[in-house]
Amino acid sequence: MGDWQSLINLIRQFNQERDWGQFHNAKDLALALSIEAGELNELFLWKNAEEADQERVKEELADIFTYAIQLADKYDFDINEIVSRKIQNNALKYPVEKARGSAKKYNDL
Amino acid sequence: MGDWQSLINLIRQFNQERDWGQFHNAKDLALALSIEAGELNELFLWKNAEEADQERVKEELADIFTYAIQLADKYDFDINEIVSRKIQNNALKYPVEKARGSAKKYNDL
Amino acid sequence: MGDWQSLINLIRQFNQERDWGQFHNAKDLALALSIEAGELNELFLWKNAEEADQERVKEELADIFTYAIQLADKYDFDINEIVSRKIQNNALKYPVEKARGSAKKYNDL
Amino acid sequence: MGDWQSLINLIRQFNQERDWGQFHNAKDLALALSIEAGELNELFLWKNAEEADQERVKEELADIFTYAIQLADKYDFDINEIVSRKIQNNALKYPVEKARGSAKKYNDL
Repeated sequence: MGDWQSLINLIRQFNQERDWGQFHNAKDLALALSIEAGELNELFLWKNAEEADQERVKEELADIFTYAIQLADKYDFDINEIVSRKIQNNALKYPVEKARGSAKKYNDL
Repeated sequence: MGDWQSLINLIRQFNQERDWGQFHNAKDLALALSIEAGELNELFLWKNAEEADQERVKEELADIFTYAIQLADKYDFDINEIVSRKIQNNALKYPVEKARGSAKKYNDL
Repeated sequence: MGDWQSLINLIRQFNQERDWGQFHNAKDLALALSIEAGELNELFLWKNAEEADQERVKEELADIFTYAIQLADKYDFDINEIVSRKIQNNALKYPVEKARGSAKKYNDL
Repeated sequence: MGDWQSLINLIRQFNQERDWGQFHNAKDLALALSIEAGELNELFLWKNAEEADQERVKEELADIFTYAIQLADKYDFDINEIVSRKIQNNALKYPVEKARGSAKKYNDL
């Protein structure tokens, strides 16, 4: 699988070579991420989950990771730390005994 | 710092304990990701990039990573491989000499 | 400006001719709407508000109205009624004296 | 039933009373619209189309119309004109004989 620091380095180099840092404020990076999320969703539109084109899912998901990693880098967040902390918080909001087998939101549990 | 695999393992365990795999088809995971992207964007609405609340950005970004990682896991994609390949493709679509200092889309370059 | 009933009729006829009603469940219509919202946002990405291409804004906004009208038609909502009621509710959540000149969300006012 | 102009007037008055015009540049209005689209989609997450809460669909859809109407007003677009023109263009992109019963995108037809 690999670590994400090597991806941060790749993305930094790509942007530096193109002098793109000037455009990459956090607001537009978040906007770019949601635009890519829309493109990912388009692959599933009017379809069942299984009918999406895997190769295109791969590409759109890669774009999403690229912007998410850039945002993490911008704020100097440690990806493993923020994700594992969020999962711990979710574990409190969705205790196993209550959430098991239910798709309800925590405030409806 | 860290690697993706430890996050995949954490998320898998979280979902297994709650028996949530039944809800997690790729279409709804992609939908969940775009909903979280909307929540991230809300932190920047009517504001400059610098005015967003960092702690909340951290949480929303963690949610986005969580769904993006679940989608990658669902399709058995290697995150480092798909992201680094996409960056290579982008390097071809945005050659340094043409793209330098420009925010234009590749088909407008 | 005109009324929206004539648009509902146009859209119904368009779909009936193509036998597209079968795909148009509310979940996918909502998904289509958010995908179009992403395309609208792309016109503003890395730009100031004034730099977006007006002709393309027009097209994406038309797509958004098309799906929003279809959803309203699907649920048999009266557009003027639901919008004017929502504005009344917002007037309670954002009283003039508190909200004047502030971009804060109602729960932060 | 009703016309767009009365909604435009309601929304203008609401914003003028709160002096909100200063925040409502087209970029943030488009962003607000996509955030509301995300909230609409959340009502369908992990569910079938029929399981969404109609009252909440009504509210989120009303928010979407509110921002879409504000954008149209901002650019001085005639809503009936832009939507009916877009439907005419779609009729050319999706000719009845080719598109009938198919959910394919026009460039895959």
